[in-house]
Amino acid sequence: MTSREEVSAKILSVKVEQGLTWKGVAAELGSSSPILYTAALLGQMTLTAAEAEKAAKIFGLSPEEAAWLTVSPERGSTVLMPPTDPLIYRFYELIQNYGTTWKALIEEEFGDGIMSAIDFNMSIEREPDPKGDRVKIGMSGKFLPFKRY
Amino acid sequence: MTSREEVSAKILSVKVEQGLTWKGVAAELGSSSPILYTAALLGQMTLTAAEAEKAAKIFGLSPEEAAWLTVSPERGSTVLMPPTDPLIYRFYELIQNYGTTWKALIEEEFGDGIMSAIDFNMSIEREPDPKGDRVKIGMSGKFLPFKRY
Amino acid sequence: MTSREEVSAKILSVKVEQGLTWKGVAAELGSSSPILYTAALLGQMTLTAAEAEKAAKIFGLSPEEAAWLTVSPERGSTVLMPPTDPLIYRFYELIQNYGTTWKALIEEEFGDGIMSAIDFNMSIEREPDPKGDRVKIGMSGKFLPFKRY
Amino acid sequence: MTSREEVSAKILSVKVEQGLTWKGVAAELGSSSPILYTAALLGQMTLTAAEAEKAAKIFGLSPEEAAWLTVSPERGSTVLMPPTDPLIYRFYELIQNYGTTWKALIEEEFGDGIMSAIDFNMSIEREPDPKGDRVKIGMSGKFLPFKRY
Amino acid sequence: MTSREEVSAKILSVKVEQGLTWKGVAAELGSSSPILYTAALLGQMTLTAAEAEKAAKIFGLSPEEAAWLTVSPERGSTVLMPPTDPLIYRFYELIQNYGTTWKALIEEEFGDGIMSAIDFNMSIEREPDPKGDRVKIGMSGKFLPFKRY
Amino acid sequence: MTSREEVSAKILSVKVEQGLTWKGVAAELGSSSPILYTAALLGQMTLTAAEAEKAAKIFGLSPEEAAWLTVSPERGSTVLMPPTDPLIYRFYELIQNYGTTWKALIEEEFGDGIMSAIDFNMSIEREPDPKGDRVKIGMSGKFLPFKRY
Amino acid sequence: MTSREEVSAKILSVKVEQGLTWKGVAAELGSSSPILYTAALLGQMTLTAAEAEKAAKIFGLSPEEAAWLTVSPERGSTVLMPPTDPLIYRFYELIQNYGTTWKALIEEEFGDGIMSAIDFNMSIEREPDPKGDRVKIGMSGKFLPFKRY
Amino acid sequence: MTSREEVSAKILSVKVEQGLTWKGVAAELGSSSPILYTAALLGQMTLTAAEAEKAAKIFGLSPEEAAWLTVSPERGSTVLMPPTDPLIYRFYELIQNYGTTWKALIEEEFGDGIMSAIDFNMSIEREPDPKGDRVKIGMSGKFLPFKRY
Amino acid sequence: MTSREEVSAKILSVKVEQGLTWKGVAAELGSSSPILYTAALLGQMTLTAAEAEKAAKIFGLSPEEAAWLTVSPERGSTVLMPPTDPLIYRFYELIQNYGTTWKALIEEEFGDGIMSAIDFNMSIEREPDPKGDRVKIGMSGKFLPFKRY
Amino acid sequence: MTSREEVSAKILSVKVEQGLTWKGVAAELGSSSPILYTAALLGQMTLTAAEAEKAAKIFGLSPEEAAWLTVSPERGSTVLMPPTDPLIYRFYELIQNYGTTWKALIEEEFGDGIMSAIDFNMSIEREPDPKGDRVKIGMSGKFLPFKRY
Repeated sequence: MTSREEVSAKILSVKVEQGLTWKGVAAELGSSSPILYTAALLGQMTLTAAEAEKAAKIFGLSPEEAAWLTVSPERGSTVLMPPTDPLIYRFYELIQNYGTTWKALIEEEFGDGIMSAIDFNMSIEREPDPKGDRVKIGMSGKFLPFKRY
Repeated sequence: MTSREEVSAKILSVKVEQGLTWKGVAAELGSSSPILYTAALLGQMTLTAAEAEKAAKIFGLSPEEAAWLTVSPERGSTVLMPPTDPLIYRFYELIQNYGTTWKALIEEEFGDGIMSAIDFNMSIEREPDPKGDRVKIGMSGKFLPFKRY
Repeated sequence: MTSREEVSAKILSVKVEQGLTWKGVAAELGSSSPILYTAALLGQMTLTAAEAEKAAKIFGLSPEEAAWLTVSPERGSTVLMPPTDPLIYRFYELIQNYGTTWKALIEEEFGDGIMSAIDFNMSIEREPDPKGDRVKIGMSGKFLPFKRY
Repeated sequence: MTSREEVSAKILSVKVEQGLTWKGVAAELGSSSPILYTAALLGQMTLTAAEAEKAAKIFGLSPEEAAWLTVSPERGSTVLMPPTDPLIYRFYELIQNYGTTWKALIEEEFGDGIMSAIDFNMSIEREPDPKGDRVKIGMSGKFLPFKRY
Repeated sequence: MTSREEVSAKILSVKVEQGLTWKGVAAELGSSSPILYTAALLGQMTLTAAEAEKAAKIFGLSPEEAAWLTVSPERGSTVLMPPTDPLIYRFYELIQNYGTTWKALIEEEFGDGIMSAIDFNMSIEREPDPKGDRVKIGMSGKFLPFKRY
Repeated sequence: MTSREEVSAKILSVKVEQGLTWKGVAAELGSSSPILYTAALLGQMTLTAAEAEKAAKIFGLSPEEAAWLTVSPERGSTVLMPPTDPLIYRFYELIQNYGTTWKALIEEEFGDGIMSAIDFNMSIEREPDPKGDRVKIGMSGKFLPFKRY
Repeated sequence: MTSREEVSAKILSVKVEQGLTWKGVAAELGSSSPILYTAALLGQMTLTAAEAEKAAKIFGLSPEEAAWLTVSPERGSTVLMPPTDPLIYRFYELIQNYGTTWKALIEEEFGDGIMSAIDFNMSIEREPDPKGDRVKIGMSGKFLPFKRY
Repeated sequence: MTSREEVSAKILSVKVEQGLTWKGVAAELGSSSPILYTAALLGQMTLTAAEAEKAAKIFGLSPEEAAWLTVSPERGSTVLMPPTDPLIYRFYELIQNYGTTWKALIEEEFGDGIMSAIDFNMSIEREPDPKGDRVKIGMSGKFLPFKRY
Repeated sequence: MTSREEVSAKILSVKVEQGLTWKGVAAELGSSSPILYTAALLGQMTLTAAEAEKAAKIFGLSPEEAAWLTVSPERGSTVLMPPTDPLIYRFYELIQNYGTTWKALIEEEFGDGIMSAIDFNMSIEREPDPKGDRVKIGMSGKFLPFKRY
Repeated sequence: MTSREEVSAKILSVKVEQGLTWKGVAAELGSSSPILYTAALLGQMTLTAAEAEKAAKIFGLSPEEAAWLTVSPERGSTVLMPPTDPLIYRFYELIQNYGTTWKALIEEEFGDGIMSAIDFNMSIEREPDPKGDRVKIGMSGKFLPFKRY
């Protein structure tokens, strides 16, 4: 009997044991974003069957365990809100401080609607800065207007 | 007797009444980011005394009311978590789904630390797309390593 | 100084006072769904300027109050969760009991993604039944697949 | 010693392992709705003894494990509210945004009462649409008026 | 501008001021149960137009205020859970201690379903007892089986 | 090492395995109410040593496991509030909707005090009704006045 | 229109304004415990009509306001849990640290039951101590055994 | 690998198995209060090394398990608030109902400060009463004034 | 009718209006710590009658308003936890990250007990640093051992 | 399969078993603060590879277990808020009582910004005092001004 949680736990355990890196693993899995692959391995996105097979080799997963990686996961279940980890919490804080501002400016530019979190992609990069390097995040989500019927 | 909450409520009321836009107001206040100015008017950031004076003229604020705009606000008090508004909620959802991924990739690139939400700036733009325009968000926060003593 | 909450409260008060019906008001406002118009008057959707003007006449709103009806509202703020009202709670209960089933069957049919709550419409009708009439609800939301980048 | 939770976990595990589909399993179990059968297998509805026997064959359950499928389950215990999974959350969001509207329109049509979530059935279908297929949900619940005594 | 909350508050205030009793008021309003009338005056049930008119005379309500008594209220909004008042809390405690027992025995007797809280009536009486009088509560709710479709 | 939780889980498991009924078991245990015996077996009340011995025979418990049934349990720990199960939730809903009414009418009849949930008994019966049988619940709790000192 | 909350607020305001003491007021009201009188004035217990009349003179209450003091209050509504005030919190902490101990020892001495919080009295005294005076609290509540029926 | 929780669970298990009493065990451990010893065995206070050795003999603990009894425990972790058990809940209720009264009277007598929950002792006794024996609780905590610096 | 909350709100309003500083006000009030005086003006500590009189002159308070400043406040009621303001939140984060460490090291040094938050003083200073000035906080609280009785 | 939680549990278990002290272990690990080393061993900070190797020897960890000590942990996950342990709770209480004061005084001295909890160090010392030794805590965190862009 296996579960998605156990597969994620096994992946994390093997990663620490063997000193693997997310970027390294991602490069082996395919040409999509490392964010997508990392999220999938952490139980938040799905892999294709081919990608899952590669992951199975890297992490020593059984066919059953690999199959779980292709199943839509119970998303969001691994971050208890509010986040206790400072790195994750800062994003939560940004929502508290800037949420109403984002709403005001997106609606002013696009009208009544939202930025999709499903048709969505993002990047994380190092932005060199003499006063201290910066984390540069790019997000892009399709604008979805409230449709009237 | 005045309070920061009342000043924000008055600003919102005048904005609707007079059909002002955040970007228009921001352009009149100074050369900083519209995000900063909108956040300040919504009670999440501070204005300089000169900017507050300009805001007072635009929104018909008394000197006392304008003074509140220069005071560090009780940040975060206007977004009840989890956010009920779909536009704001989508950012919350991103944290639930990608929080562990962001932590994994930022730590892999930068080491043990966080992206500052204080030494932080961001932009919101329209990204034209034939399949539907997209909301493009750029965030940049200084990386702060956990210091050892 | 006005706010969206006060406009909604005034609309509710006038409705009870004058014995108006939501469907009657909706028919006067335009040709969209009564669900959309009722939601807008209850502070959850927006009206066009022309519709807001009609609403102003029906409910005796000032121009400022009418203007609020065209502004994207702080959605979701009027239903405290879990809902205490039995009628609303039953929908909440459906999620608790059938949420995992809906997820399983939608994903099986459509793949990894969601039903949009933004590009969404619905209807509520009476379904006559000799054993007791039934509430018939039709929902239709665009399927949004998780995009891979 | 067995429990309903363990039976559900085993069913999920076997389903992934053998690549079964809910609709396929449902068709084997009987002529009721796939929603009912999926819900029962996920621990939210009951099967008849005959259906449970068929399920036992499909999933390799012991007689004791099969017996649990005929017992009224502790409903609702598998969806932590608010739902963290985007697919399930969207239904939660619909309640927050439209709950008061549904209440207003159902009461206007039917009087003071509720839509039953017990004498209730529903369907999920694909609605083809050139702008993107849609998830079409039909719900039908008996209207129950508050009885006066 | 009036609201249901204000009408309830006025009724409570007048009741204390004039030393009225719930049973006395109920007897004047009509022949239904005092529980129904008290609940309606406390904002949890509706009155007919004729009953509301009588209530208006007793409590000195304006026509608008009386009209609110005929509107389906936002039920449940006046008891914050868990209840802090000892009298109300004891019922909450009964659920915590006996909830699983009630479920077990009702399902054993009736099958998979619930006791309706909508087609429901109850009585509260004094049960004389030499060791101290007892509160005798009778509840009767229609059994609703989970329907299969 | 045993615990009360494990004993309850074992009892539930054996009951499903052997198709026992609560009422049947209760009749074997003694002459008290089936509600009391079911509650005790579910970990909410205590059995006498003699009753526990009988329960041990029925469920195949070791002497240590049987001893746990005579120990005052950590009451209430098995129903997470608000209840997610519809059958149990309806009682919770009754408190939300009628709690203030019960308080009003009990205090009007008895004065300032409460209905005991400790010196308390209840019955659950089938009430035949041509429009659908009803669940008939009788509760009787000693009235306890707030004592003045 | 008056309410119990306003009467309590007025009493507190007058007490500070005139520099009254709870013990002094209690002595004027009657011969019961200062704890009872203070609790009643703070909105947690009731006064007799005669006591309420005396309280009305001391605090300058109108007849309507005085009448509220004889009405069973919505108990517990003024202490948000967990308590934020250190003095009140320490009692909360005692429950967290000693709750299981109290349960163990009371049940060992008295059997399965509780200490009544209704047939209950208490005293607060100064206990002189050379190492620093102590707060001495005496509580006495009737033991109520779980009755078997 | 052992933990304090496992030691407490083992102690409870042995106590039930062997029919020990808290007072009996306390008398063997030393001359301090049974409340202290019971709390320590339940994981809320510490024992001296000598007392832990005696406890090890009584409960058959290994040296490692006994060592845990001398370590400051993670206090309060075993009572989830609000308490679901009626016996423990009554104390919680007393805080809700009398918390503001205790604060008022302690501050009136002692000035601005608190009763210590650390330099604290208490007793639990049977108070015989013809109308039903009472639980008599004595608490004594050092008064700690807010120090000014 | 006045309340402590209104006095604090008035003080904040006057402070902004007149551009006062906490340190400046503190210096006028007396020789105790600015932390104590600021806390008292924000409704968390008490002033002596003489200090309150000085505060009344500075902030234009009535005698009744000044009297509230000498009354033990309902402490802690102004910071909703978790704190939404980033400055205050960082202290909350320190507890989450270092709480178990502080407990471990304080107990190792002092034995089983706590650092008093009542017999407590602290200072906040600027610590010049070429890499950016630092906030230097000094806390000193009396160690209170758990007393054994 | 290992996890950070299991490594921390093992470390705690070995520490109790062998009677180690945090300060003693810290001194063996390196020259950084005992606070840092204790936090790392409790799963809140990271060790260098060299330090982890030393820790492995002290606590008998496998290479895999040691590797976990160098991985950024899921911070904050071990203190459930509000803290139930009195020692940790007192710090929580300080935030509730002094949070607004700290914000007021830090902003007055430094301007709009925060004290970093990342570029942060602290010390815990014994402060001898004839009236009872005190816990002396020194904190120093870099001031981070809200940057304007």
